[in-house]
Amino acid sequence: MAASRMQLLSPRNLSFLGRGRTELFAVSGAPKRAGDGPRGRALNSSPVSSRTISSVSETRRGLPREKMTENGVSSRAKVLTIDTMNPTVKKVEYAVRGPIVQRAVELERELSQGVKKPFAEVIKANIGDAHAMGQQPITFFRQVLALCSYPELLNDSTFPEDAKSRARRILQSCGGNSLGSYSASQGIESVRQDVARYIERRDGGVPCAPDNIYLTTGASDGIVTMLKLLVCGEGATRTGVMISIPQYPLYSAALAELGAVQVNYYLNEEKCWSLDISELQRSVDEARTHCNPRALCIINPGNPTGQVQSRQCIEDVIRFAAKERLFLMADEVYQDNVYADGCQFHSFKKVLFEMGPEYSSTVELASFHSTSKCYMGECGFRGGYMEIINMDNEVKAQLTKLVSVRLCPPVPGQALMDLVVNPPQPGEPSYDNFIKERTATLSVLAEKAKLTEQVLNTVEGIRCNPVQGAMYSFPRISIPEKAVKEATANGQQPDMFYCMRLLEETGICLVPGSGFGQKDGTYHFRMTILPPTDKLKILLDKVKEFHHKFTQKYS
Amino acid sequence: MAASRMQLLSPRNLSFLGRGRTELFAVSGAPKRAGDGPRGRALNSSPVSSRTISSVSETRRGLPREKMTENGVSSRAKVLTIDTMNPTVKKVEYAVRGPIVQRAVELERELSQGVKKPFAEVIKANIGDAHAMGQQPITFFRQVLALCSYPELLNDSTFPEDAKSRARRILQSCGGNSLGSYSASQGIESVRQDVARYIERRDGGVPCAPDNIYLTTGASDGIVTMLKLLVCGEGATRTGVMISIPQYPLYSAALAELGAVQVNYYLNEEKCWSLDISELQRSVDEARTHCNPRALCIINPGNPTGQVQSRQCIEDVIRFAAKERLFLMADEVYQDNVYADGCQFHSFKKVLFEMGPEYSSTVELASFHSTSKCYMGECGFRGGYMEIINMDNEVKAQLTKLVSVRLCPPVPGQALMDLVVNPPQPGEPSYDNFIKERTATLSVLAEKAKLTEQVLNTVEGIRCNPVQGAMYSFPRISIPEKAVKEATANGQQPDMFYCMRLLEETGICLVPGSGFGQKDGTYHFRMTILPPTDKLKILLDKVKEFHHKFTQKYS
Repeated sequence: MAASRMQLLSPRNLSFLGRGRTELFAVSGAPKRAGDGPRGRALNSSPVSSRTISSVSETRRGLPREKMTENGVSSRAKVLTIDTMNPTVKKVEYAVRGPIVQRAVELERELSQGVKKPFAEVIKANIGDAHAMGQQPITFFRQVLALCSYPELLNDSTFPEDAKSRARRILQSCGGNSLGSYSASQGIESVRQDVARYIERRDGGVPCAPDNIYLTTGASDGIVTMLKLLVCGEGATRTGVMISIPQYPLYSAALAELGAVQVNYYLNEEKCWSLDISELQRSVDEARTHCNPRALCIINPGNPTGQVQSRQCIEDVIRFAAKERLFLMADEVYQDNVYADGCQFHSFKKVLFEMGPEYSSTVELASFHSTSKCYMGECGFRGGYMEIINMDNEVKAQLTKLVSVRLCPPVPGQALMDLVVNPPQPGEPSYDNFIKERTATLSVLAEKAKLTEQVLNTVEGIRCNPVQGAMYSFPRISIPEKAVKEATANGQQPDMFYCMRLLEETGICLVPGSGFGQKDGTYHFRMTILPPTDKLKILLDKVKEFHHKFTQKYS
Repeated sequence: MAASRMQLLSPRNLSFLGRGRTELFAVSGAPKRAGDGPRGRALNSSPVSSRTISSVSETRRGLPREKMTENGVSSRAKVLTIDTMNPTVKKVEYAVRGPIVQRAVELERELSQGVKKPFAEVIKANIGDAHAMGQQPITFFRQVLALCSYPELLNDSTFPEDAKSRARRILQSCGGNSLGSYSASQGIESVRQDVARYIERRDGGVPCAPDNIYLTTGASDGIVTMLKLLVCGEGATRTGVMISIPQYPLYSAALAELGAVQVNYYLNEEKCWSLDISELQRSVDEARTHCNPRALCIINPGNPTGQVQSRQCIEDVIRFAAKERLFLMADEVYQDNVYADGCQFHSFKKVLFEMGPEYSSTVELASFHSTSKCYMGECGFRGGYMEIINMDNEVKAQLTKLVSVRLCPPVPGQALMDLVVNPPQPGEPSYDNFIKERTATLSVLAEKAKLTEQVLNTVEGIRCNPVQGAMYSFPRISIPEKAVKEATANGQQPDMFYCMRLLEETGICLVPGSGFGQKDGTYHFRMTILPPTDKLKILLDKVKEFHHKFTQKYS
């Protein structure tokens, strides 16, 4: 019975996108290499099982498996094959960059080669990559980064003084005054101080110690590192980690790789993707029959679902975590992306401390932030931080040791994180322009969030919850029974089938809901709200038209 | 018998630096947090074993372990403790940023607070961090990075045209022409093309396919990713990975974390740290009694040992890998750092292809490069690449999937990698200055390599092999029996004891040989050759004086 429950909860059975690796990642042809003639390729594709090489008795005999071909070239079976590679890596799935995106890239190439398509360009609404969609970087941030990269510019009178003083401060914290030096593994000390002050301001004065801040290579790095610390045990005592469904697939991917048990709790689509404590309870109780649930991950504002949690909900979650002895992980990378009236971002840290010492001195929490989202959208710099609260001191020392192996997060990303938490202040020369740029970006996002919801809800067979925050809509789509059958016959998830058709017919690249997880029998897609407004309108109209035609065709 | 061999080869028994975690990483005191009063701290330090929380039967009862204190605040045992954290993480050790460096940082702080010490400054020769030691970045590289960060500068007439055209080309390859966009997970395509052309030039025309290039977050990231793919099996079929002793501790750390078996082969100190095939044979034969050795890691030029391998040696290693069916991993991050007369860098790729199709079409190889070393020293940008040769196509698809989970390597680091493989060409405005700067940096390093070897060899009780390449000397030091006993009584490795005394008395920070591995009963330290020449002279004189006094004291 435990086994069947496990199956129910395991990532493989989550109606996730792939059936097998071949569907997930198409191999783009044999690499062209010198000396890799037909024989080499034949070898590559030959179904020689290399499982035997892991047999001690075989290898001990010192008889490598090789045979001589007619011209005396020995053709050895590969050391590393799909059968002899790390099995946990094979289980990893990551839909946001899955087969649909690879096909989109191919289509772009075909278009550029003049191949005729029913569309003139591919519009990628699959990933929260703001600058790629035309969002402009904050001028002040880029000025400081340029000054730090090439300090000769500190003599250039066209740069504002506040940008220069910020650059000088960052450079003074770098070994040899260079971004090219390693920083401390935990991150540059002055940046961690600035992060701590930012958190204190954000949380209405709740104290924050720089020593609890770890700078990271994007938020993903911090999340994976924390999960890594948490995993232990075997079989029924193996660490379980609770994640929302739908989820951001970094979580399922990391858990698969770490061999942890993914414990799903479902967000309530009918109530605007809200989180019900009773569902958390059902989930943890069920999980306890076959694993040891030790952590609870929350994404707020939600990815892919766009909901913003109420203060009450966060309090309930914290109480639940305390009662059930769960380490809390709060993914708060969209903390500035709140659009809906009446919604507000509440950090888990702040709510925790407002609940008094019974909670604030005991509940273990890691929260994550990043330079990639909000109004910055600086994904390429891979900047981020995590704050840890109530972590056991010995574990903290182990965490510090663990991050030291990778030496340090990228220093330009650390510098950028510093600017995000310490932007221009009133009275400084760059302040007005900074506020103007930030406000413009956030209001355009708010507009696009509303537009997306409105247009999608005019389509029969599409139902879209309000995009309260973050950067995505995750509408539910009706897929006719006939289309479901055709998809299944093709070995595809129905919403993958739908999104692939959409891509081929319109050039619009979305991610099927199955890549994030969804209730059995329901179908969704995730669409970013990031394309420029005019393009977003076209995109939404095309989706509308496509859905109509698709439904007609398969009805 | 197998068990005792295993013990002999396991990382824990490698006379590595620590005895336990407390020696390895001192906890820097309880973090100061609001609500973390005396009770909180008492909890932190209380020896409550939390092992029980991983017991399913306990947790299933739904009885969280908590007790009420006098004022009604419940004090819960932590979810995550040293006893319940990931056991493989605990086994990780990383000497280059270990306790001696933490003490050096403390001493710097004390000095800045006016505490009297027998020295005026701390000199860190523990890590290959060139810019921190005053090495200047290459002007052209930084100009292009500034242009890419703040493209307004493309209108600035003071920047040379070749820097501008390079910046334009990089930006055109970025989504939305911004460094802030995610790149493809494998790295920007045009950068991978430039890397491939660089490798072809370097290797005398041996073809290189951009599709076999993966850009990485420094070389460490690539190495860990490759090791991750290779690990499988349990018990006697567990993957073994052969690494040199002495080694760069990233390898032992990654293997510990992945739960792979570290298989040591010893470099021959008497023959200038050369690699003997007979030792490889001994090592692999012994390993086969208890694990499945599948990969062989080589660092050339050597870290920490500074040797440069001959072409013949590389050919022998390749033949050995082919015969023993081992996946080759060539860490070639010091490929421009070759100083000794008669020494030359030979890439494994080139030698492999010169050996003809019997090898070039079968031997699996991954080689690694980085922006952090050579004449660039740009560690903070975390740029790097790996090239994979003869990798099974299905495994390659899995590799591409795996790297996609982290989205992409830092884009500024990718841009920098591009400049390294595609520097100014003859006739371009920046060419002369680029050559001047590169030559100056490399000749100063060559001088310092010679100086280090010469001075150390004047000290009785220190014997230093020629620093043929890379950035370190790894001299053997005699430690008197009395000092060994005192160290052992303190629970310290004798060379850790030596280096700690050196640090406290002179302010010089080196890394004990035990952090890299060494033959039992021999002692070493690793010292970078990076401090500015005048400072390096002082440093070497101080080491000389210290060694003399230390030897006298304990004789």
